[in-house]
Parts: sequence; structure tokens; C-alpha cells
Amino acid sequence: MPSATLELDYANALAAAVGQAHGVSPAEIRRAQPAVKAAIVQIEKQRRQGEHRYRDLPADRELLRTVKAAARRFGPRMNNLVVLGIGGSALGMIALQTALNPPLHNLLPAGRRRGPRLFVMDNVDPVQFADLLDVLGPALPKTLFNVISKSGETAETAAQFLIVRDLLARRLGKKGLARNLVVTTDPESGTLRDLADAEGWFTLPVPPGVGGRFSVLSAVGLFPAAVCGINIDRLMAGAGEMSRRVASRSVRNNPAAMLALLLHAFYTRGKRMHVLFPYGYQLKDLADWYRQLWAESLGKRVDRRGQPVVVGPTPIKALGTTDQHSQVQLYREGPNDKVFILVSVEKFARDVRIPRAKTTPPALRYLEGASLGKLMAAERRATELALVASRRPCLHLRFPRITPHTVGQFIMLWEATTTLMGHLLDINPYDQPAVQLGKDYTYALMGKPGYEKQARALRRRCKPSRYLV
Amino acid sequence: MPSATLELDYANALAAAVGQAHGVSPAEIRRAQPAVKAAIVQIEKQRRQGEHRYRDLPADRELLRTVKAAARRFGPRMNNLVVLGIGGSALGMIALQTALNPPLHNLLPAGRRRGPRLFVMDNVDPVQFADLLDVLGPALPKTLFNVISKSGETAETAAQFLIVRDLLARRLGKKGLARNLVVTTDPESGTLRDLADAEGWFTLPVPPGVGGRFSVLSAVGLFPAAVCGINIDRLMAGAGEMSRRVASRSVRNNPAAMLALLLHAFYTRGKRMHVLFPYGYQLKDLADWYRQLWAESLGKRVDRRGQPVVVGPTPIKALGTTDQHSQVQLYREGPNDKVFILVSVEKFARDVRIPRAKTTPPALRYLEGASLGKLMAAERRATELALVASRRPCLHLRFPRITPHTVGQFIMLWEATTTLMGHLLDINPYDQPAVQLGKDYTYALMGKPGYEKQARALRRRCKPSRYLV
Repeated sequence: MPSATLELDYANALAAAVGQAHGVSPAEIRRAQPAVKAAIVQIEKQRRQGEHRYRDLPADRELLRTVKAAARRFGPRMNNLVVLGIGGSALGMIALQTALNPPLHNLLPAGRRRGPRLFVMDNVDPVQFADLLDVLGPALPKTLFNVISKSGETAETAAQFLIVRDLLARRLGKKGLARNLVVTTDPESGTLRDLADAEGWFTLPVPPGVGGRFSVLSAVGLFPAAVCGINIDRLMAGAGEMSRRVASRSVRNNPAAMLALLLHAFYTRGKRMHVLFPYGYQLKDLADWYRQLWAESLGKRVDRRGQPVVVGPTPIKALGTTDQHSQVQLYREGPNDKVFILVSVEKFARDVRIPRAKTTPPALRYLEGASLGKLMAAERRATELALVASRRPCLHLRFPRITPHTVGQFIMLWEATTTLMGHLLDINPYDQPAVQLGKDYTYALMGKPGYEKQARALRRRCKPSRYLV
Repeated sequence: MPSATLELDYANALAAAVGQAHGVSPAEIRRAQPAVKAAIVQIEKQRRQGEHRYRDLPADRELLRTVKAAARRFGPRMNNLVVLGIGGSALGMIALQTALNPPLHNLLPAGRRRGPRLFVMDNVDPVQFADLLDVLGPALPKTLFNVISKSGETAETAAQFLIVRDLLARRLGKKGLARNLVVTTDPESGTLRDLADAEGWFTLPVPPGVGGRFSVLSAVGLFPAAVCGINIDRLMAGAGEMSRRVASRSVRNNPAAMLALLLHAFYTRGKRMHVLFPYGYQLKDLADWYRQLWAESLGKRVDRRGQPVVVGPTPIKALGTTDQHSQVQLYREGPNDKVFILVSVEKFARDVRIPRAKTTPPALRYLEGASLGKLMAAERRATELALVASRRPCLHLRFPRITPHTVGQFIMLWEATTTLMGHLLDINPYDQPAVQLGKDYTYALMGKPGYEKQARALRRRCKPSRYLV
């Protein structure tokens, strides 16, 4: 395997490591393989019929050309990029930036950044938004806004957009609006599409057939990435390589197949919390992105035939080493209801050596001459072994380095694993029927026309509570 | 109840709202009250014998005086404050800063901040640390370091500290070290205490009898807060008020008692994931702080008599509205194994109105004239009602405003609830025996003297894996 390739080690998920009651046996893996292979065959067949289109994004040369041209056109004069988007329109692009730009990107002087400062507004907190507008204030002409919404009707993004549109129109006029705004939306129809067409704003497509949480490798994630200096060619090359790897029917050569097989096995035996536990600050928001992918895709009430099933592993993000000092007590001594996916980085882009000094206390001398990278690696290994000592199953996913190429692999790996898990759980991983009710209630509470009846019903339910402390 | 007081509404946790199978009945609450009252009586008795000392921190006038004097002495000339600490030495102070300073604090010009920029290094990621040192570079003379460790032997904090000490000594000399360093550590003994005494560095105490995860209202959290301009008098006043409220034997007037009673009832009936779900960016790190408090205190293998018990609710942090677009599909349709604690803010410090315009598409007109604060409140209520429609029990904790006073209440409320939960689960909430093994393994892998035998054993276990994909 080339050294720039992600690698999955599942030795510590096996019964040999954590015992029969908590580990998966080689026999179990053998027995589960036909179902996984069948799912892979079916998925590859469905791909030829136009399904699972996120898998083909890396092969879309036109997409890369379009995004790079847009980034060249809008990016260079800008000091700030503000993304208005939420959920699938934000989590992937945040993850790319955290992984591939410096942790203190926004504090670096312009000359030391590869792109503008970045602000992602994936909430409608009024303090957060008002403060951002203040900070941008004088810099508004050099601020690019990228509003991302397939329909344009997501309440949070729409509200922010109406505020920003008004601000840009007042401060910069119609021309400024056109220069400082990129709209990422449905290529054919929808509220935001219609508005953009009517006003002549520049648009990028949210590709048809790719759901929000699978859209990071479309213009949704790629445009902000390219504007901020991330090499999206290499990102897509990595994703493309992984897309080929996960098509393999050989479970032992297909990391998505093995991940799905094991996580499905753990789910069915009651380990319903799946903890993604990267050791590296730059990987933390990939764990947050995974959280949406896993929860929204796999938490379902009915199976593919509409029969009641009620499934759904709960994804949990943790961060090493930080959460050793927060969660590991529970992880080792609490109920054995979790499986851990530790993620390591073989070589960090930079390292810091711990210096020697005569006055270093004896109890700390062991650290002298080592590096923070070495300490990080030791802590990751130590934590995995300590979890195993408590019979907690662990998987280990290894990044050789954090690069656009390996991050692309990671993204495609988890997306493909999610599709496979959907097949193994026999549910549709691409819908999200349960989020509609909350949206309807919000419309009703906000007085949207057409929701009057629901609004009356809600008002009846929102009586002052008698159960207050 | 005064309007500046946190309020708990548990109507939607009751059987009347979510059904017998998933809600708690009034009769169940009545039956559980004697045990809760007995625990409160016992805790208050133990307090008089010197236990649960975190409860008395708000009454410690000397502590406030010491911290404020230190902040006045070290803070004013500084442009940067770097905190070196992890776990209980970081999570609380981060939560205070996020809650009570502007979201973009570090990007504001010095004149518009109430204190220096703040960097908390609660990890040993080498890229993150190297980048920080670069950014600080020329500003080092105006950078205050606050190293926080009770023992001084926490590997992560010790490693960072050795690097920073060397840097300060080389760049600023012995005098600079003394001017740019505040050490928060054990007042009596330990590696860091000995070193600070030998070198003459300024120190603040980690109070005896207060564990790391209960230490935010000691110098650990208060000093960085005061340096960054947070009103710690009002914070402590709020915490003190709550400390009195949670001493009440009347469960219906004691929010910690009702929270513990309900969360314990939900735990015993299989709802083992406790989701803290604030609606407000500024509250998000309080949810992260809660995550440590709940996990590390309540995840235990043995009860108070050392008998096997294996308990522990898994705390989960979510953020509204963001996670509606990430987790709510699972929360509504997945297994009904969670209880939700939604947190709202009645009035935000700022708000932003959504302007009217002739060109606003009809589908978005309902937003015009409303504010982001109103939208946030509607989304919170809509999500709670949608969860209830799926028979998911919800608690609602209401902040009238986010102020030092209410944040102090929130902190004390959850600390007291944790102690009570420990009593109800019959475990010791103050120890963390399971984290030692990982520390020992780290020492062994890093070559610390005294761990040679363990190191050899680990090397035998760390053979190249045959289970790679």
C-alpha cells in the first residue's frame, strides 16, 4: 500500500484482544462477509444506474474547473470570506478548513495566509452575528459572502442572507452585491435560484442527486476551500483513489467494507455509541462532520419497505489528548456500550522539541528531548491499550500525514461506509424525514402563511408550565 | 423567583407529555423524593464536616481578593494570555470566556477588548502549538502565561511548560520569566509548587479538597476570567445564590434536586445518553464543561463500598440551532435512549432585525421584521415540541440573560446536580481511578524511569498488526 494511504487497523476490535463478550471473532467476520459483499455489488450496480452520485464527484473535471475559475475570479481581492450555511452546507467545509489551514488562520497577517480570513455562520445566534457584522464593518468591500442553500428556504440561512443582502445593497449598491456574493444553490429551481437569476448573481451548483451531508466534495465545500488556498485537485485525487478502493468486493482490501462490517456487528450487539476519537487538533472538525453523516443517515424509524425498525448508532466526537482528561474515565469504567475509532497522524507538518534544562524537576526529565508529536503518539497508543485493558473494542485509523490527499480519502471513506451501513441496516441513508416537523413548527411559530392552523394548535400547547423549579 | 434566576421546566419530561413508557409520572416523582431529600440532608451534613468544598468557594472573600489583586498586577500590560492546562484546568475557564466575552474577542482591536487575547492550549498538537508560538513571537514580552496543574506532572501541561519556560528564559531572562508567568498549583506540595518556590514565581492556589472538574470557581477559572475582564464578583454572587438554592430539602424548590431526580429516573429506565442542548453560541462550551463533569464524575465501575456496579450516563453536547441540521433526525427517529436538556436564553445582549425589501421572495416574507433572537427562540421551542411529538423526554433550562450572575448559577447548579447524582447512583463522584492506567502507559512509552517493566510488556503487545486494511 502506498505510504500516503489511510490505513485501518482492527486488531483491537477482535475477541482475541477484548474477549468474546466484547470483541468480534474472525468467524463472525467471515460469516458477515457475504452480506457486505452483496451490498457492495448492489451499490456498484446502483451507481451505474445513477445512484450514490457523491462517489463520482472526484471524477468530475468540469466541477473542478468551474470551482477554480470562480475562486480565481472572486477570491484574490478579498480579505474576508463569510459563509452563510448550516448543517450539510457548513460542516464539511469547516472540516476542510480546520484540517488543511493553520489553526490560527484568522489571526495571521494577510501576507502569511493563503487566502482571506474565514467566518462560517452556521447558527442564528444574534450576538455572534451582530459581532461579526461589527468586525467586518469597514472591511465590507473586501468581504466575500458565499450563501449556501439548495432550496434557499432553510430558515437560518435565509434570515442571515436577507440581513446581508440588505447590508451589501445599502453599503455597496447593486454592483457591490454582484461582486461580493457567490450563491451556491440548486442549478435548476428553488427560491434562491430564482432570486439569483432575477438579480444576476453568480452561482455555483449544489449537484442534483447529492444530499447535503454528502456534498462537501461539490462546490459546497470546494469553493470556500479553494478561496482559502486549499489544493482541491489533490483533495479530489485522494477522494477518487478511495472511491476506487471502496468498490472492491474483497472485504479485507476495502476499508469501508471492514469499517461497516465491524461497526454493524458492534451495533447489533448493543454497542450503539460510535466514538470517533482523532488525535490531532486539525482533525477535530472532521469528527464533527462525521457526526452529522452518521446520525442523520442512519437514525431511522422505518426500513426500506416502510416497516418499523427504529435503528441508529449515536455518533460521538472526542478529541485526543484533551478528552482523556474528560471522557476516558467513563469510557473505561462506564457501561461497555461504545466502540472507539481512534485516529492518529504518523507525521505532523511541524513538531516542537521539549528542551533540556538543568532545573527541570526529576519527575519531568523523561520528557526532555522528546517532541510534542512523539508525546501525542504515545498518548494515543496508551489510551487505546488502556481501553483494551477494560475490554473496550477499538479501531485505529492512521493518517500518514494530514494533507489534502489524505483528507480526501478520509471523507470518501466515511461517506462510503455510511452508504454500506445503510444497506446493512436495511434503511435509506439519504433521507431525513424527521427534521420536517421541527421546520413546520418553526414556520408556524414565526407566522408563515399556510401554517395558521398548526400555529393555533401550538399556542394551545405552549401554556405556562406548572412544572417549574 | 427573581427575574435574574435560572429556571427549570420539566413539563415535557412527564408521562403526560411523552407517554408512560418514556416519561416520568408525578407518582414516580413523589416516590423518588425521600431518597433525594435524604441525599441532600447527608450532603449538607457532610459539608459541615468539610466535604463538597466547591460549594463554599463563592463565600471565600479571600479568594476573590487574591485573584483580583493578581489580575490587576499581571493583566494590564499584557496583549496575550496563554493558558497551559488540560481537562479540569481548561474546560471551565474556556466555558467562562465563551459565555461572557464576545465571540470574536481575539479579533477585536485592543481598545475594544476588556482584556488580552486569549489562547488556551489544552492539547499537545505540535502544529497548533508551533503556530501559536509563531503568532506570539514578537509579542512575547506582552504575553502572560498561566500554567495550571495541581501536581505539575500532567504530561501535556508539563511538556508545554518546559517549552515555554525555555522560551521565556532565553528571550526575556529570569526577570521576564517572573513577570510573564503565573503558576496555579497546589498550595503546599508537588513538582510545580516546588519549582515555583525555588524560582520565586508568582503562584495562585488550586484549593485543597476541590477536584479539577469542580475547580472553575477557584483561581483556576477565576484568574484568566478576571484578566480578560469578566466580572468575577457577580459570577460568584450567582454561584453563591445557587449554592443556597440547592441546599433546600424541598425538591420542588431545588433545581439540582429535580434535575438529579429526573436524570436518575431516566438513567435507570435505560435513557443513558443525556444531551445538553443549548440554544446560543455563547453557551456551547458550558456544554463541553458539563461533558467532563458528568462523564468523569458518574462513570464508575464500583459503588461506595467497592462492590461492582458499572454505571455512567454518557453526556452529549449539542448546539441549537446548528445540530437540528445534524442530530435531530437521529434524536427523533433513532432508539428512544436519550433525554434532552434544552437551554434557552430569554433575552440576548444584542439582536439583529431582518429587514424588509421589495424583492424578498414570497416564501421568505414571514421572516421580515422578525429578529434573529426571535427565530432562535422559535426554533428552540419547535425542536422541543417535535422531540415531544416523538415521545422523547425534554427538560428546559431557561437563562433570563447570559450574565456573569446567571453563568455562576448554571455552574453551581450542575456541580451540585452531579454530587446528588453520585449519591443516587451510590458512587463516589470525586475520584477518577480509570485514568491512571493510560497515564502509566504513556510514562512507559515515553521512557519515564520506574516504568521499564511496563514498557517491555507494552512493546510485546505493540507488534505490527496482521489486521490491516
